[in-house]
Amino acid sequence: MTTLDPAPSLVPTLGGHWYTDPAIFAAEQEHIVEAGWVCVALAADLTGPGSYRTVQLGRESVVVVRGRDSQIRAFFNVCRHRGAQICTEPAGQVRNKLQCPYHAWTYDLTGTLIAAPNLTRMPDVDRFANGLAPVAVREWIGYVWACVAPDPPSFEEEVIGAVVTRLGDVESIDHYGVENLALGRRISYDVAANWKLIVENFMECYHCATIHPELTEVLPEFADGYAAQYYVGHGAAFGAGVQGFTVDGSAGHTRIPGVSAEQDRRYFAITIRPGVFVNLVPDHVIVHRMTPVAPDRTLVECDWLFLSEVVASDADLAASVELFHRVNAQDFAACERTQPAMSSRIYARGGNLVPSEHHIAEFHAWVAERVR
Amino acid sequence: MTTLDPAPSLVPTLGGHWYTDPAIFAAEQEHIVEAGWVCVALAADLTGPGSYRTVQLGRESVVVVRGRDSQIRAFFNVCRHRGAQICTEPAGQVRNKLQCPYHAWTYDLTGTLIAAPNLTRMPDVDRFANGLAPVAVREWIGYVWACVAPDPPSFEEEVIGAVVTRLGDVESIDHYGVENLALGRRISYDVAANWKLIVENFMECYHCATIHPELTEVLPEFADGYAAQYYVGHGAAFGAGVQGFTVDGSAGHTRIPGVSAEQDRRYFAITIRPGVFVNLVPDHVIVHRMTPVAPDRTLVECDWLFLSEVVASDADLAASVELFHRVNAQDFAACERTQPAMSSRIYARGGNLVPSEHHIAEFHAWVAERVR
Amino acid sequence: MTTLDPAPSLVPTLGGHWYTDPAIFAAEQEHIVEAGWVCVALAADLTGPGSYRTVQLGRESVVVVRGRDSQIRAFFNVCRHRGAQICTEPAGQVRNKLQCPYHAWTYDLTGTLIAAPNLTRMPDVDRFANGLAPVAVREWIGYVWACVAPDPPSFEEEVIGAVVTRLGDVESIDHYGVENLALGRRISYDVAANWKLIVENFMECYHCATIHPELTEVLPEFADGYAAQYYVGHGAAFGAGVQGFTVDGSAGHTRIPGVSAEQDRRYFAITIRPGVFVNLVPDHVIVHRMTPVAPDRTLVECDWLFLSEVVASDADLAASVELFHRVNAQDFAACERTQPAMSSRIYARGGNLVPSEHHIAEFHAWVAERVR
Repeated sequence: MTTLDPAPSLVPTLGGHWYTDPAIFAAEQEHIVEAGWVCVALAADLTGPGSYRTVQLGRESVVVVRGRDSQIRAFFNVCRHRGAQICTEPAGQVRNKLQCPYHAWTYDLTGTLIAAPNLTRMPDVDRFANGLAPVAVREWIGYVWACVAPDPPSFEEEVIGAVVTRLGDVESIDHYGVENLALGRRISYDVAANWKLIVENFMECYHCATIHPELTEVLPEFADGYAAQYYVGHGAAFGAGVQGFTVDGSAGHTRIPGVSAEQDRRYFAITIRPGVFVNLVPDHVIVHRMTPVAPDRTLVECDWLFLSEVVASDADLAASVELFHRVNAQDFAACERTQPAMSSRIYARGGNLVPSEHHIAEFHAWVAERVR
Repeated sequence: MTTLDPAPSLVPTLGGHWYTDPAIFAAEQEHIVEAGWVCVALAADLTGPGSYRTVQLGRESVVVVRGRDSQIRAFFNVCRHRGAQICTEPAGQVRNKLQCPYHAWTYDLTGTLIAAPNLTRMPDVDRFANGLAPVAVREWIGYVWACVAPDPPSFEEEVIGAVVTRLGDVESIDHYGVENLALGRRISYDVAANWKLIVENFMECYHCATIHPELTEVLPEFADGYAAQYYVGHGAAFGAGVQGFTVDGSAGHTRIPGVSAEQDRRYFAITIRPGVFVNLVPDHVIVHRMTPVAPDRTLVECDWLFLSEVVASDADLAASVELFHRVNAQDFAACERTQPAMSSRIYARGGNLVPSEHHIAEFHAWVAERVR
Repeated sequence: MTTLDPAPSLVPTLGGHWYTDPAIFAAEQEHIVEAGWVCVALAADLTGPGSYRTVQLGRESVVVVRGRDSQIRAFFNVCRHRGAQICTEPAGQVRNKLQCPYHAWTYDLTGTLIAAPNLTRMPDVDRFANGLAPVAVREWIGYVWACVAPDPPSFEEEVIGAVVTRLGDVESIDHYGVENLALGRRISYDVAANWKLIVENFMECYHCATIHPELTEVLPEFADGYAAQYYVGHGAAFGAGVQGFTVDGSAGHTRIPGVSAEQDRRYFAITIRPGVFVNLVPDHVIVHRMTPVAPDRTLVECDWLFLSEVVASDADLAASVELFHRVNAQDFAACERTQPAMSSRIYARGGNLVPSEHHIAEFHAWVAERVR
């Protein structure tokens, strides 16, 4: 980008109504969230057979449960008889069946209808056709990904492909062995902003110098405004005197063994559309999962994952967790002060992306293509 | 119903949008609630001339008031001048007029405009045409029934006809002399479910074994899943050791004198569409009145009526009241866990009615006929 | 108005849906509030260079700020980069620039873009075209009036014209020197009623005898039901024993020097559509400013202004303020009990205006003309 560059510095964003219109939000829920793969749970949270989580996937309530065979399955949380929700607790443990508490229709952990009052007097009732409606699931990097669409898109292209696009290959994330890490801390945020503002914010670092003093201290190149996500395969380097990815630059915890020399002392960030951010540093991995609940409201759950021996040792994780917790709070506050202006006539045709943000236009095109 | 029965065991319910769509709810308010007879008050609550109640009838606020002649009348709660509400308290007592507190337009208890500032200087103002707009009323079984429609349907067919359909004749309810009973207890419930889920729940007993342990203890046949409402004229018999319709099967109170030998030790239930349930047992009568306020919210007021000497004697009504109060709480909890699934794509074409619920399809047809 | 008058006494109001329909409310926001001049702040509240207020003008957030040159300017509160709100506090003080806290785009107090990260590397970015979007402003009678429309209507016709229509000339208000008065008291009201009900209420005094005992005590002619606003140039005379415009008729404060003999001991009221009421009495001026926020909710801010020496002397203003504070509370309660009836079928074609209210029909025509 020089003064001779004929391309304009400013590229338009989506118009403001994309962030406020209930019809667009509904279309996003239908054509993006409910049509693709959503990261719904940490696999380790399903501790054993019969352990379940009740999660919201777009407008659908879904039960994710580990079976007697240790396989994780997911079902629409809707009894096939009269529609009562099978599970209403966010998490729980059953023995070997899911029973509707209204009329006692009973399903095994594969979803098959196995019992109901007077069922023997209804021999024409098919136990499979009237079983719980299944939801497609995959396990990857230690998380359960689910898709409520009848014909799910390719997980390899949609999810793993996002990692390849960012890092250049899938081996780069494999080095972190995320599926072997343990949960050190989980923080939930309730953000009064459209989910796309949060994605856009995560994709650029033009704001870093202004709102992230602690982060730019650790990653000095962020002060220039170019996000790690701007370049394929690039990880932002720690500052010279920085010992670890911590709020005060102090040393972190035991390095993940598989992390390569090129990956050491660097921060990598990946956006897996629509709602997952993965952040890789040598000694831990941070995973954000977003649930859009209204045009102007998004829930974000953030996990900090460390080597299991680190978590088991009761090490003090505060300095590590605090760094990105502050980044989250700073980012979400910025998104929240942006949301109100989305309905202004001045923003009807959107705002402007500066050169270090031009790649966000590709995200806008991705959304627009699916919703229209 | 045998294995040779060619009819399918499962019959579809209404699709989920019938329980969530604001347009359908508005159509129900207009074509069902505001087009028919609604039970708006216990007549005895209007204790004498000038005693009034302000009630919600569909989307209309209505004042029900006892006149100087002891007749009960009802009016739209709208001043004919500039529309202020005449009464805002849920209940009260006036002397002999209803006066708008905004500009002091004043009406007598028959609704005629009798005074207003400067009214004598407006001789062309017709006192009747500008009187309070009347609402049709009837008194029956001790309750005030009102209809805001300009041309009310036949009370005999709509309301009394429902009793005949259920009991086979009107004498069967006359035996209870409901209009002579006294209010022993009233409990209000705020239910986070569509009103039709509450009606459907009341119409079937397939759920009784699962959620009503106390009720099936008193009425053992309910454990089989067939509601009293399934058969014309049938009342569910008390269990062998049961002494009364109480939470613990203990003896109730003085039997209503008119109750016949066939009616003794039995429970009868009547649904008067759209929103009244009448429950008859030998020593008391329970009346439920529903007010739908949103697609996913319904208010229910439940009265327990006993012989007036029982109420006057300060007898302990707790064991009698507690039985159906628990049934109510159990039922409404079931309806509340059913409501959320109504918006699932899995319930888009509805759920299934088992044979002991097949009669509910007739209620669905009744609703669909009026709304479409 | 005599019995021979062929004109009907009752003239219809707007139909009820004008007070409840979200589509009409949105059209009013667009074609009335955002198309005309809105009184957004007391100029004296902007105490010096860099002093700002963040105000809501229809659906737009606007920053009103005093510049280095002491001029008051207003801008849409939307950063031209990515839309974050520049100011989120209701009032504050900056030095000589407005800086977006998200990416640090920085504007001077005339709105010009003067700095941004990497801005020097974007030479094609026009500092004026990408400056804060201006909002038209005027100062008059000590208040800041703003218009977000791209092509504002004539301030002289719309605002000053309203005064001439009421008082007959503009000199009559000039006598009060409102711009030299000081704020003695400000009270905010949150009213659960449509803004038009509040305007209509202010325009008539047919309700005065019923709900304003203190006001009719001070202005006895109000008991007849004819508002000061009914006659051009008319001010309502204080009662014989009344010493001042106070809640108990006690003496008020030092008379405003310019008030003429004809204006002394009189109350004048002016409605400046859509949302300002100006009340003139010899020793103070009361200004109401309304902000419609929903079909059934309006915020009202009421200022009591006195001679600056009165305010500076710490004189007890309570008896003066209390009179109109009570009037406000009485009026807003009346509007709030009128709002619910607006959705009744009985009010579908509206209510009735009596002769002393007939002039309100002109306001209805004014609204209808703009919204349709």
